[in-house]
Amino acid sequence: MSSRLASPEDYSKLVNSFDTWLFDCDGVLWRGDHVIDGVVEVLEMLRRRNKKVIFVTNNATKSRKSYKTKFDQLGIEAHVDEIYGSAYAAAVYISSILQLPKHKKVYVVGQSGLEEELRDEGIQYLGGTDPADNTLEPFDLSTFTLDPDVAAVVCGLDTQINYTKLSKAFQYLIRNPGCHFIATNEDSTYPTSAGLLPGAGSISSPLRYSLGKSPVCTGKPASTMLDCVKAKVHFDPQRTIMVGDRLNTDILFGQNGGLTTLLVFTGITTEVEITGPEPSPIIPDFHTQGLGDFRIVERTP
Amino acid sequence: MSSRLASPEDYSKLVNSFDTWLFDCDGVLWRGDHVIDGVVEVLEMLRRRNKKVIFVTNNATKSRKSYKTKFDQLGIEAHVDEIYGSAYAAAVYISSILQLPKHKKVYVVGQSGLEEELRDEGIQYLGGTDPADNTLEPFDLSTFTLDPDVAAVVCGLDTQINYTKLSKAFQYLIRNPGCHFIATNEDSTYPTSAGLLPGAGSISSPLRYSLGKSPVCTGKPASTMLDCVKAKVHFDPQRTIMVGDRLNTDILFGQNGGLTTLLVFTGITTEVEITGPEPSPIIPDFHTQGLGDFRIVERTP
Repeated sequence: MSSRLASPEDYSKLVNSFDTWLFDCDGVLWRGDHVIDGVVEVLEMLRRRNKKVIFVTNNATKSRKSYKTKFDQLGIEAHVDEIYGSAYAAAVYISSILQLPKHKKVYVVGQSGLEEELRDEGIQYLGGTDPADNTLEPFDLSTFTLDPDVAAVVCGLDTQINYTKLSKAFQYLIRNPGCHFIATNEDSTYPTSAGLLPGAGSISSPLRYSLGKSPVCTGKPASTMLDCVKAKVHFDPQRTIMVGDRLNTDILFGQNGGLTTLLVFTGITTEVEITGPEPSPIIPDFHTQGLGDFRIVERTP
Repeated sequence: MSSRLASPEDYSKLVNSFDTWLFDCDGVLWRGDHVIDGVVEVLEMLRRRNKKVIFVTNNATKSRKSYKTKFDQLGIEAHVDEIYGSAYAAAVYISSILQLPKHKKVYVVGQSGLEEELRDEGIQYLGGTDPADNTLEPFDLSTFTLDPDVAAVVCGLDTQINYTKLSKAFQYLIRNPGCHFIATNEDSTYPTSAGLLPGAGSISSPLRYSLGKSPVCTGKPASTMLDCVKAKVHFDPQRTIMVGDRLNTDILFGQNGGLTTLLVFTGITTEVEITGPEPSPIIPDFHTQGLGDFRIVERTP
């Protein structure tokens, strides 16, 4: 059962118990282009108390650098080395875990943020934002030639999704059974300030469906992202808390990594999903309305 | 266990045992734009013997009328009232089973063949081939207004699939829980003469994934298509055979309808899938290399 934070002491106790704070972004810090109330003050309070602050996001449309720009625009303090995105995790997975030889390439179903992270890891890629693949013209399989160096297909959220990209990715995967199939994340929906849209998992789903095969996922709840964090930052899981708005990504990610978890209701999940008559099988350790609730700590002696 | 047709007597016996012959098209009669060897002669032989010939296809990109044109171009005799497509089945399902009131509309993720069948059934629709929805421009949810008359989303194979269409369909389904979610068919792949491409099931899969909800499917193996045939043609299931190249659509469709089934290997399925060490759970009554094998009947006294 999840504990609802209520008294000033509840919040203070949590702040005192954890040295490292991992935050999901969409639905926790902001929603679309709007900062969630109180978030800036709470992050400042944690920094003043020398807490390590880390941002773990499944959004693979942005590189860490462009994420930093988003934090800046919204007036939230963040540093590139505090940001871990699923596009970065995919690039690290390809370069460090798969150790793809340098002459091999990746076919990208995704946007420029994913391309940027691949480039930064020295990975060659095709597809992605290439105008030739961003078209609604008919795809002619009979004139398509496979690049023999493509050894992986990586999918992220791609709002330029089309049949040419899907067909090329499908060819690489079906004709070469050794070709790796990677998804940055499997979020079903994508929150914007105007509401939900289909998420990254829905972009890889046509391939999953047509191939009858699941991708390796590098985003939450998979532990690949936490492996990336661990490789760069030292933290004690006993004194680390994961704050998120989604049960099946953020909270499960924290649980998979042996972290304490805190759910907020400023994003996807509603309170009834954990306290109602048919609660989710994934229950956080703690829950509160929003991150802004922690402002009470400042007002407490 | 499936019986392999081998001797002239096997083929003659089958021809004599069945009055109504249902055929899948892609992979049985043709592959892409090439007629499969012997098909024209065998269909002529069946017609000469007064067999009822019916074509049941999951391809929802073509209306029955444009299917007829394809038969004509390939030199295969067929009549519009012998052709049953999944787009037609979807239109009949909406008008006759759901009985959608005339002022209600359908949002289409699909091509002109599906639109034509809806129009012929007097169903109003949005989306589909509308240029406004066939774009790779960013989709702006904040300026999108739901048409309150949309009461169903219908998905077929759509090689113009894009994020705007998916997002609109998603909005209709998520904001109105009573909105019907229909797929013409759930084929994982789509056969062309140059090879396989992602099929209609992969076009509806982003919605299935993002909504966590399955569509009602009107194509094979669902019985909706056979209900359409039954409404128009009298046949005795005991003396009816379904000929197809796919186990999980054609053969299962025949079995669901209580028909005898015959598998051919000119399409998707290979012989090892039914006779190998790990056979499919879906086994036809009979199998033969291709429909052209029945030419032997003509040569038999």
